[in-house]
Amino acid sequence: MSHPAVHPVEAPPPLTTENAAVAAPRVRMKDLQGMAGTPGGLVLRLFQSFFAIGAFLVMSTTSDFPSVTAFRFLVAASGLQILWSLSLAMLDIYAILVKRNFCNCRAVSLFAAGDVITSTLIFSAACASAGITVLIGNDLQSCSKNHCAQFETSTGMAFMTWFAALPSFLLNFWSLASR
Amino acid sequence: MSHPAVHPVEAPPPLTTENAAVAAPRVRMKDLQGMAGTPGGLVLRLFQSFFAIGAFLVMSTTSDFPSVTAFRFLVAASGLQILWSLSLAMLDIYAILVKRNFCNCRAVSLFAAGDVITSTLIFSAACASAGITVLIGNDLQSCSKNHCAQFETSTGMAFMTWFAALPSFLLNFWSLASR
Repeated sequence: MSHPAVHPVEAPPPLTTENAAVAAPRVRMKDLQGMAGTPGGLVLRLFQSFFAIGAFLVMSTTSDFPSVTAFRFLVAASGLQILWSLSLAMLDIYAILVKRNFCNCRAVSLFAAGDVITSTLIFSAACASAGITVLIGNDLQSCSKNHCAQFETSTGMAFMTWFAALPSFLLNFWSLASR
Repeated sequence: MSHPAVHPVEAPPPLTTENAAVAAPRVRMKDLQGMAGTPGGLVLRLFQSFFAIGAFLVMSTTSDFPSVTAFRFLVAASGLQILWSLSLAMLDIYAILVKRNFCNCRAVSLFAAGDVITSTLIFSAACASAGITVLIGNDLQSCSKNHCAQFETSTGMAFMTWFAALPSFLLNFWSLASR
């Protein structure tokens, strides 16, 4: 995934407009904190994992979450987010330890695609849970019979996961577009 | 917002790496169909308006939508989306008629910001409504007492609005990043 200089170095071609536009972002990509393979990116991944684990645990410990489809969806989406964020965090740790960054276009586009899928899932699950939590709490006024506090905590943590996942996606997409 | 050549033309500076990276995307931006100021962009805006108007009308004609917060939110979000998409559609028609495109960075970033706000709102409203519609239909099995068909139609149209709004945002963001 990283690009070590093992290939024999060719004589550089004359610098045309085309070459300059392709070559310029190589320098820029190293500077973007928060991208895959940087300490900022690792921090974002750890925040995502932390909030997703929180949402997962709080929701799955309520007794009546399986009776509502949206709450089951939240548990599934946060579980997927945990797997994705922890895997990417491990890749980031590896990249930091060997002091390489992912300047491979295919790897970055794979990360961007995974980020957009997991963050869309967790956001839609959070919105659906928020809709039902507000319905139970405000519209039906039946918080006394339900675990409103736990539903609200879990929904809030799912939104925090999304907030932490958004910069990862946007930075990967930006670095892909600015190549 | 468009850039007519009214300024006196200066002698072009020598083509360095920096200049080439800035100058190259000017050509690329004209080619991207679906961006603001292109027929593809106008078609996207018209699809957004059509689906948002559908979601707004179907939901606001049910008698019991004001009792659920998520449905009120869906009506508000689709109303905002209608205003935004119709305004941008008019700007697109103007740009096509005068045969200019928006190569101004500030205009494109404004469009991208507006797109991300309206599409996030309509997506969260659609998810919240979907959560409640599934709760009523599948979990509580009380479709006979509620307007399930209308809720489902409106939610589906809100999702279609989001699908039509996504390419507009991604293309504007991409052209912003590839400058």
